[in-house]
Amino acid sequence: MSFLADLLSTVFERRYRAGPTAQTDSRPIEELAAALVGSQGEMSGLALAQQILVRFDGLDDAEKLALFHHFERDMDIDPDTVREALAAYEHAPTKDSYRSFMEASEPRRQELIRRLNSVPGATGQLVRMRADLLRLGRGDPTLEPLDLDFRHLFASWFNRGFLVLRPISWQSPAYILDKIIAYEAVHAIDSWDDLRGRLQPADRRCFAFFHPSMPDEPLIFVEVALTRGIPGSVQDLLAGQRKILPATEADTACFYSISNCQAGLAKISFGNLLIKQVAADLAAELPGLATFVTLSPIPGLARWARDQEVLLDGSDDTDPASAAAHFLLKVKAPDGGPSDPVARFHLGNGALIHAIHTGADTSAKGMAQSAGVMVNYLYDLDKVTRNHEKFATERAIAASPEVTSLAAGHAPARSEES
Amino acid sequence: MSFLADLLSTVFERRYRAGPTAQTDSRPIEELAAALVGSQGEMSGLALAQQILVRFDGLDDAEKLALFHHFERDMDIDPDTVREALAAYEHAPTKDSYRSFMEASEPRRQELIRRLNSVPGATGQLVRMRADLLRLGRGDPTLEPLDLDFRHLFASWFNRGFLVLRPISWQSPAYILDKIIAYEAVHAIDSWDDLRGRLQPADRRCFAFFHPSMPDEPLIFVEVALTRGIPGSVQDLLAGQRKILPATEADTACFYSISNCQAGLAKISFGNLLIKQVAADLAAELPGLATFVTLSPIPGLARWARDQEVLLDGSDDTDPASAAAHFLLKVKAPDGGPSDPVARFHLGNGALIHAIHTGADTSAKGMAQSAGVMVNYLYDLDKVTRNHEKFATERAIAASPEVTSLAAGHAPARSEES
Amino acid sequence: MSFLADLLSTVFERRYRAGPTAQTDSRPIEELAAALVGSQGEMSGLALAQQILVRFDGLDDAEKLALFHHFERDMDIDPDTVREALAAYEHAPTKDSYRSFMEASEPRRQELIRRLNSVPGATGQLVRMRADLLRLGRGDPTLEPLDLDFRHLFASWFNRGFLVLRPISWQSPAYILDKIIAYEAVHAIDSWDDLRGRLQPADRRCFAFFHPSMPDEPLIFVEVALTRGIPGSVQDLLAGQRKILPATEADTACFYSISNCQAGLAKISFGNLLIKQVAADLAAELPGLATFVTLSPIPGLARWARDQEVLLDGSDDTDPASAAAHFLLKVKAPDGGPSDPVARFHLGNGALIHAIHTGADTSAKGMAQSAGVMVNYLYDLDKVTRNHEKFATERAIAASPEVTSLAAGHAPARSEES
Amino acid sequence: MSFLADLLSTVFERRYRAGPTAQTDSRPIEELAAALVGSQGEMSGLALAQQILVRFDGLDDAEKLALFHHFERDMDIDPDTVREALAAYEHAPTKDSYRSFMEASEPRRQELIRRLNSVPGATGQLVRMRADLLRLGRGDPTLEPLDLDFRHLFASWFNRGFLVLRPISWQSPAYILDKIIAYEAVHAIDSWDDLRGRLQPADRRCFAFFHPSMPDEPLIFVEVALTRGIPGSVQDLLAGQRKILPATEADTACFYSISNCQAGLAKISFGNLLIKQVAADLAAELPGLATFVTLSPIPGLARWARDQEVLLDGSDDTDPASAAAHFLLKVKAPDGGPSDPVARFHLGNGALIHAIHTGADTSAKGMAQSAGVMVNYLYDLDKVTRNHEKFATERAIAASPEVTSLAAGHAPARSEES
Repeated sequence: MSFLADLLSTVFERRYRAGPTAQTDSRPIEELAAALVGSQGEMSGLALAQQILVRFDGLDDAEKLALFHHFERDMDIDPDTVREALAAYEHAPTKDSYRSFMEASEPRRQELIRRLNSVPGATGQLVRMRADLLRLGRGDPTLEPLDLDFRHLFASWFNRGFLVLRPISWQSPAYILDKIIAYEAVHAIDSWDDLRGRLQPADRRCFAFFHPSMPDEPLIFVEVALTRGIPGSVQDLLAGQRKILPATEADTACFYSISNCQAGLAKISFGNLLIKQVAADLAAELPGLATFVTLSPIPGLARWARDQEVLLDGSDDTDPASAAAHFLLKVKAPDGGPSDPVARFHLGNGALIHAIHTGADTSAKGMAQSAGVMVNYLYDLDKVTRNHEKFATERAIAASPEVTSLAAGHAPARSEES
Repeated sequence: MSFLADLLSTVFERRYRAGPTAQTDSRPIEELAAALVGSQGEMSGLALAQQILVRFDGLDDAEKLALFHHFERDMDIDPDTVREALAAYEHAPTKDSYRSFMEASEPRRQELIRRLNSVPGATGQLVRMRADLLRLGRGDPTLEPLDLDFRHLFASWFNRGFLVLRPISWQSPAYILDKIIAYEAVHAIDSWDDLRGRLQPADRRCFAFFHPSMPDEPLIFVEVALTRGIPGSVQDLLAGQRKILPATEADTACFYSISNCQAGLAKISFGNLLIKQVAADLAAELPGLATFVTLSPIPGLARWARDQEVLLDGSDDTDPASAAAHFLLKVKAPDGGPSDPVARFHLGNGALIHAIHTGADTSAKGMAQSAGVMVNYLYDLDKVTRNHEKFATERAIAASPEVTSLAAGHAPARSEES
Repeated sequence: MSFLADLLSTVFERRYRAGPTAQTDSRPIEELAAALVGSQGEMSGLALAQQILVRFDGLDDAEKLALFHHFERDMDIDPDTVREALAAYEHAPTKDSYRSFMEASEPRRQELIRRLNSVPGATGQLVRMRADLLRLGRGDPTLEPLDLDFRHLFASWFNRGFLVLRPISWQSPAYILDKIIAYEAVHAIDSWDDLRGRLQPADRRCFAFFHPSMPDEPLIFVEVALTRGIPGSVQDLLAGQRKILPATEADTACFYSISNCQAGLAKISFGNLLIKQVAADLAAELPGLATFVTLSPIPGLARWARDQEVLLDGSDDTDPASAAAHFLLKVKAPDGGPSDPVARFHLGNGALIHAIHTGADTSAKGMAQSAGVMVNYLYDLDKVTRNHEKFATERAIAASPEVTSLAAGHAPARSEES
Repeated sequence: MSFLADLLSTVFERRYRAGPTAQTDSRPIEELAAALVGSQGEMSGLALAQQILVRFDGLDDAEKLALFHHFERDMDIDPDTVREALAAYEHAPTKDSYRSFMEASEPRRQELIRRLNSVPGATGQLVRMRADLLRLGRGDPTLEPLDLDFRHLFASWFNRGFLVLRPISWQSPAYILDKIIAYEAVHAIDSWDDLRGRLQPADRRCFAFFHPSMPDEPLIFVEVALTRGIPGSVQDLLAGQRKILPATEADTACFYSISNCQAGLAKISFGNLLIKQVAADLAAELPGLATFVTLSPIPGLARWARDQEVLLDGSDDTDPASAAAHFLLKVKAPDGGPSDPVARFHLGNGALIHAIHTGADTSAKGMAQSAGVMVNYLYDLDKVTRNHEKFATERAIAASPEVTSLAAGHAPARSEES
């Protein structure tokens, strides 16, 4: 195991990265890209790839956008070539005809991205490059195929088999903790003391997925509270003065915050795997844990209520819990799944809507998003597969009888969107 | 750096791997494969993938071969679908039409391999699967496209950016050293004492490339001797009783053995990168090093000589060194490159044929392959790029004046093959 | 090296420590101590020692003080026994007579401390025990012999050969950085951002000594600024907005803060070794470094000036720099060494008084202690041994000609204390 | 934990050690030793200590012996000084009088050894120095006091709190395994394959104690077999072809070999602690383990039988098992404890003589020492303390009823030695 541990601590990797770039090649970056895709030797290829990455970092947004359009337009497939190669392969499926078809049917920009990735440390840069693409290309459909190319390659490179789960704790290096503070997306971390309160107590845990080629960057992380009973208020959970529970006395692991860290990995899904891996690890470490549950926001609730002219502030006889149950169970997106994105995520993972709590998140953000209402999604490891399948095939939403009755108690103000 | 080092030492990874497989799914493995490619959820996908990998391990050779034929035949592209998708994309290049074309033009067996790889630890199994394919499919052209699919994915997964260079030393774990003994392909390692002689002395080094998802398996390694002057005899180099040179007094690093370890990674080339990375690392560690050179076998020499009725044993007036120089410089493969595979490799990397030595490898294997003759390929870091390019474009072979004269001195016995 | 690294990461050590203490032994702690010193077996000894350490932690100050007096009074040597054993050894110096003398001449409390230390993790507790002793025993001469026993053993356990130097950086674990903030004694660290400013920039370094049995506790640390030229103002050094210098461009390493961390290790000296080791390490890492120097406070200056009715605030014609030079070079403690403790430390290490700066520390503390004046002590590695020896034997103070002239320029207001 | 792990991997420590020694000091080593003990500064002290250690390594045996005599004779206590200091302390027990007494009553050679130990890496050299002393001083009573000084200091430095337990496995570095082969003292390891058979199988374990200042050197190690039932034959245990037992199916951990590694640590006892720590660790890792037992030789049996003219080879009606039981239970050393050293060790630890097996070690050594008879000592963790105490106070030997009856069945040939 120590060898395994050592594997990545390769001083020279960093030296390599920091190393002097070959002297600057003054050709336009488009020409460098063409040369890289055409280059034979790995040797000159590496130097070219480094050159392109350095040059890209120096571009301004307009130049980046122009380059993305160049990739999309000028490094696309050539339909005629594809057709010819296909016909040849159909006629005589040999090694050569197959290779020709493979090459023809894959746009050269994919090979470009793949070759850029051969520079040590480049993976993170490519993830940032896609973040640029998503940011700059928003609303421009002509760039969407290029984004699919990135996604196709990233799905292959960031598959579960390559990811590494790491606990994040008060023993973690400060530069990693810096990023936890920066990336926390659900319940903001105000200060190092706030962070300490989420990592150091015996009844708190945090886990993140990393990729070996981006060891300084968490991809996604989850914060966990070990509790007795299922918690119904995030204020209580985060209270600085609460009594610390010895981990061995906990019966419940509550996932109270899940944050994706990399804009450039949008739609590469890690959350499902993370929750299940962490649940399995905690169950093995703490045999007393019997319940795995979230305490989750309902980010779409307040907006829906506004649209529906439902009042959630108690000023009429609407029960906010009933309204929330109704929203989660009945209000659908165009594809037939639940409208709320967090509900889609957990139900898609096979979780069940277990309970709904009012006054559960009284922060400004919590009140604005969902009038303080939160929800527990329950991960019953015996049932997640069945729940998941029924959700995937029939859009069936699993819920506890209590939540089902709650939803039934909500009298819709007017007809609802689908 | 310690966090980096820790990244992979994740106990649970191993737990995960060793963990109980989901209960056995009795469907035929072909059906499991179809289900995996069709599966929506990562959840059931992971279980399916594990199932397939376990089942594959239990197949006999005939069953494996049948399965490979199934992959090749029944999970190939469908030309009509490709044509339609291509037409649609050509007509209106949108996100959806591009996605349809991407899916249609990639055989489902590629997606299958990609999904199998999502099981932690699967990468090594897939490498062994390709080794099976190469072994069982030898001479069967219908399986060559399937092999191209493996190569395509492996080239992406084993790109330089993901590889990690590690020194191998007498401080390395025994189970890694076991594999060095097993994989040494050039000058066999007879015993642990023999191994110790190549790792422990101050004037010896060994380096290997690893992949983070196969941390127990070296991919390729190189053995290096630090010397004063360029060595001309591998016996002298490996002599047990030689005087150990303090590393700081060496002026030359001699790469005397390079071994690929994984049959399943055939044609995924690491050697060029390894040599250059090791040279760069050694140069940084030991500023006294001025020369980077190999001491290499000429595996094709004896066979060629036999074919040409050239005698290399001194029984006529043929000078074996001249004959070897001639063979290396003048005898070509059908593609116009040198006939000798080791020469192709080093010349392709940009090395230069520096010197030829007779009586340089008097082992049984050395005498049988090349009548004891060996060659130094010189890596002059200032010239490798130029050499490489001239070799790649013009098939020009760089050689020292001495070797060029030597070659000129050889009177061919009869006309030579190309 | 990885095995070496692994050596201490022994999970069970922690388990052991955290493990259930043997059931409580209700005898008075004095009896437990007597039993431990008398105990034969290591087995029961370990349980006794654990018991005593746990019990000690629960004592209040009065009880601790009483226990210290018990150690001092009732576990002292017995003069008659020493005399007899001495006579026997003098008469016949055998193994047995020597052993008897060794046992008789060492108070049993030393053996008690030694046996307490056999509990994994106990070393840190013993250091805290001595801190209690120093705190509670202040002004009580009867407890000074007990303190000498602690010092005697600590000097043996914390010798240089057992210490480990570690860089402290933004990659260090948060719980270690917590302690750096807490222990910084010279220029207080206000916040994590302040800490980051001292650790993360390329021109900052920090190093600490650790002991393998107290791996969570730095013993002493030094903060270093890499600069061009010798700095003369700590404000400039710590300025948040300054320009970061690439480390390779620095010619000077300035030790601007040295803090002892453990009250319980008072008078066990690490500072000299730390400075020299860090200087040697930095010199090896950064060949451009030519000068090793401190930027140090003069903590005794303001008090001396007050006593001497010297005004340092510019309200008369006293030159504060001259006064400081005079103070450092001429004002002596009763033992003939310099009165200022920081000067004693650096001059004792062989450093030279290089320069004096006014307006160099304008913080409240800096103004109060030394009217803002600071001093550079220069570590000229070629001369430290000679300086050290002249200081040790003749109390000779090494100073630059500039500082010597400065001192000569100070007209003492009235006769000075020694 | 990773920081902890990192603590010792300090590159510079090695650099330091390897670093250039200060220029050679040509004074006689005796003078250097005197200077070191007298030296004030840690600085010159370190250089002196390094000098002495290097010089000592170059001495031949006669010179070493002379130096030991010098230490013993000329660096001893001075009785008159001790008497004066004692009187002064008795008269007025102050800090100063106590310090004077401490200094007077401790021979300067102890301080010498302590100061030598301040050189990084010196601890191992001092252990070898004591090994030299034990070897060269054998039979010379005048050197025994010097040995007591070493033991006194080593007991303090090698106390349990500083030791680190490490598993030794096929993942351990080769240079550590080298030492396991070299130091195995009970059942010799013939080859790396033999070693692999003791480390790699799932039903084998090995553990060693290390000291942080000698990380390359195991101090003591134990080899463990995990079995079902208590084994009665070491041949069966070590058989290459046996069936490997999954560790979780084992109910018994059998300690079949314990080897001390360092001659220079003779009489510094680690074995008791090692067995109990390993038993505790294995019990925590494998809850199925219910029995902790040894399979031990009886090294004194054959010699005793010869002396007693007891035949153990079956050539008369002596039952070798009865004779062995009798020997273990009844035959005493002068101090009243059992004559057999292995029995003394395990009984002293609180173990019980559980069973006796004939034909249990048929190796040449096993036949010669004990006619092939072996014994199981049982560590019943609930009873070891009681057994230990009864053994320590009353010399009472705990044994199973079977072994007690066996012993009763032996008819002594003639009266026995005590």
